[in-house]
Amino acid sequence: MEKYIISALVQNNAGVLARVSSLFGRRGFNIYSLTVSPTVDERISRITIVVIGDEYTLEQVLKQMQKLEECIEVSHIDEADAFCRELALIKIAGDEAVRESVREVCALYQAEVVDSSSESIIIRINGTPSTIDTFLSIIDSFNIVESSRTGITAVHKDKK
Amino acid sequence: MEKYIISALVQNNAGVLARVSSLFGRRGFNIYSLTVSPTVDERISRITIVVIGDEYTLEQVLKQMQKLEECIEVSHIDEADAFCRELALIKIAGDEAVRESVREVCALYQAEVVDSSSESIIIRINGTPSTIDTFLSIIDSFNIVESSRTGITAVHKDKK
Repeated sequence: MEKYIISALVQNNAGVLARVSSLFGRRGFNIYSLTVSPTVDERISRITIVVIGDEYTLEQVLKQMQKLEECIEVSHIDEADAFCRELALIKIAGDEAVRESVREVCALYQAEVVDSSSESIIIRINGTPSTIDTFLSIIDSFNIVESSRTGITAVHKDKK
Repeated sequence: MEKYIISALVQNNAGVLARVSSLFGRRGFNIYSLTVSPTVDERISRITIVVIGDEYTLEQVLKQMQKLEECIEVSHIDEADAFCRELALIKIAGDEAVRESVREVCALYQAEVVDSSSESIIIRINGTPSTIDTFLSIIDSFNIVESSRTGITAVHKDKK
């Protein structure tokens, strides 16, 4: 089982997300992450989905998405040909000594402390999904009280 | 009509996103953006939704979400009490003179040029939704060939 990134432009109708996600749900395709947000033209949204499956899953998903009336274009994004980034916010509880250790880990991973109180610290990190996975596995030894990840967003690189 | 941010923790079952988004679709609640991604515990995902509506819409959405079997917790996030961030990738086509102008705009908004070819430039910006809106409205005078935004992700600040 692998993770595949699918990027689609869709007409921004009410219910389009329900149709896209039920297309996945009905076939048992597991959505790992999904982001949807308007493009510069607010009538059109971009959906970026990370789906877990095999090549057959990927083919089926692309075929079914193409059939949706609202779907303007859909494609599989190869990480080698695209810029894939995501953003995570993590809140860690702890006293000053803990917060200092957290700051040291952050410096190594270019994560940024965006808020700090006497009880907790909030970190922002943005990078490739694997950078964020690694950072989270390291920071997991601390007391994470809240975390929120956007999921992947991507644009195609030019062929060079 | 206003934008409200809703944050929910849900059990990561196949189909949970379809149930959440169809709950919105059926009632004509307009989802502006949505992100869903696993938390540190992969069995649990966080969904962050920006919904357009009035206070009645917000109340209804929260009530309906609470009824979903997979919903562990759901709350309205007030931007004043939370860190709300999103990330956008924007690809702009143009020659070296255009790319130089784009770089100047980026410097003003702390956006970062992440890739540059002889035909285009890719920019990453992360910030509050309003920072990104402003940046996009300025950069809109250039030839945007592709753009992708994650939608908002958020964590609560400590009361100070």
